[in-house]
Amino acid sequence: MKIGFIGTGIMGRPMAGHLQAAGHELVLHRHRSDPPAELVDGGATVGTSYAEIAAAVEVIILMLPDTPDVEAALFGANGLATGDLSGKLVIDMSSIDPIATQRFAERVAKQGGGYVDAPVSGGEVGAKNAALTIMIGGTVEDVARAQPLFEAMGKNITHVGDVGAGQITKVANQIIVALNIEAVAEGLLFASKAGADPAKVRAALMGGFASSRILEVHGERMIARTFNPGFRIDLHRKDLSLALSSARSLGLSLPNTATAQELFNSCAAHGDGNKDHSAMVTALERLANHDVA
Amino acid sequence: MKIGFIGTGIMGRPMAGHLQAAGHELVLHRHRSDPPAELVDGGATVGTSYAEIAAAVEVIILMLPDTPDVEAALFGANGLATGDLSGKLVIDMSSIDPIATQRFAERVAKQGGGYVDAPVSGGEVGAKNAALTIMIGGTVEDVARAQPLFEAMGKNITHVGDVGAGQITKVANQIIVALNIEAVAEGLLFASKAGADPAKVRAALMGGFASSRILEVHGERMIARTFNPGFRIDLHRKDLSLALSSARSLGLSLPNTATAQELFNSCAAHGDGNKDHSAMVTALERLANHDVA
Repeated sequence: MKIGFIGTGIMGRPMAGHLQAAGHELVLHRHRSDPPAELVDGGATVGTSYAEIAAAVEVIILMLPDTPDVEAALFGANGLATGDLSGKLVIDMSSIDPIATQRFAERVAKQGGGYVDAPVSGGEVGAKNAALTIMIGGTVEDVARAQPLFEAMGKNITHVGDVGAGQITKVANQIIVALNIEAVAEGLLFASKAGADPAKVRAALMGGFASSRILEVHGERMIARTFNPGFRIDLHRKDLSLALSSARSLGLSLPNTATAQELFNSCAAHGDGNKDHSAMVTALERLANHDVA
Repeated sequence: MKIGFIGTGIMGRPMAGHLQAAGHELVLHRHRSDPPAELVDGGATVGTSYAEIAAAVEVIILMLPDTPDVEAALFGANGLATGDLSGKLVIDMSSIDPIATQRFAERVAKQGGGYVDAPVSGGEVGAKNAALTIMIGGTVEDVARAQPLFEAMGKNITHVGDVGAGQITKVANQIIVALNIEAVAEGLLFASKAGADPAKVRAALMGGFASSRILEVHGERMIARTFNPGFRIDLHRKDLSLALSSARSLGLSLPNTATAQELFNSCAAHGDGNKDHSAMVTALERLANHDVA
């Protein structure tokens, strides 16, 4: 398939590489810097404008940082929508606003294009190993068209529902991940302050109802004090900000998400926005004047 | 081994049964009702007083509801400590206050007895299947003496540290379990209110960083609306009450544990204290005027 791939950063670069390795033809975009050399060496071409890329490809994949970036790439003055989107499929794999996503899909549909939202989790490691979890919203037909591309990039691939459902699922994921980190932080901090060895407590809890991927991975980081990312607090703050603003417009109360965001804000205030999100524990440690380990 | 087993309720009864099946000799206590017939049929004797039981056995196992019950059985007017505890080993498998536990152990030590705290998780099913998680505090010698008994009742057996460390671990477990339930409730409620199918969202999240035993088991209960216990909200309220009062005396701030307790309190206010703790989601649903499913 001929694919326009917009956003070849830390995540997009290995994802595009897997598509190329699977035999797809890539057209890249020159944004702030040249596209990755290994993709060009592998046969990717570089379009001179978004309109040219839109004209040349069947599928456009976006892997960009935030909602305004996706909006600009699609609908900006020189965006993809200035080209011909008729019969094209736009696959947005960025993590952005679910409600904005539905608007973007409607605008693309007016030009005769299909739209699938397919945010991922699994981070850089998942992207490199083609082992991403992919959460998908879109029509059955559009998702079927994208399916071989997803299979080249991910492992746990779920079509959740209509357009926007992928982004909704990603927000739910980020809520649960943040709150599970907070849960492990409160549990280990309690244990440590009460006089037990947090490493042994973690080991004892791993087999039972408290077990989680976060207890396993992030619990260990809290004890070992290895707060190099991983997934940065500033990115998780962006996601919780989206969760809390969406909750407000939907009419929802998310009390513990709000507290978790305040703990991340405390980390940012202490200059730790670039640390791994497991460093949320340090905000609770400041409150308690006691460190887990 | 000759074992005094105090507390043959929902949990204690199958636990005592496994000890009997492993060849140990049980001495039971007649509290409010006769001891379970199958244990007596299996050869257990019934002591007429705590003092007589203490005199007759090598090991005393307690499996009682709360701190005051353990205190009364040990140090009440006719408690076990009125008998000869010299050389005996007290194993408290109840879930009680870690700080009170250390006091109890000191008092038993003054009479020449050993003390191990070994609370469990895994519930009635774990007790029946001899698959309990057992979290242990005590000296290496005392724990070694108790080890064959633990192996007859549990699977994931961890010696965490000195006396009290088992109870500390159990409190940490209950904090994390409650907060993971709250996390799944916020995530699924967000997804549902935003228009996605919560069952598909749960399925999509199961492979990634949001995965947990609670997402698997309690997430399913929230979607299927099966709130029969399981583990009752009133019991979890008791545990979080212990967590929050211990946190206050230790000088710790546990913000999300406090919120989770308030959500459990709301459930109790609505007459749902007897429901499974996954019904915490109903308190968030009331706040949002929207149900997950």
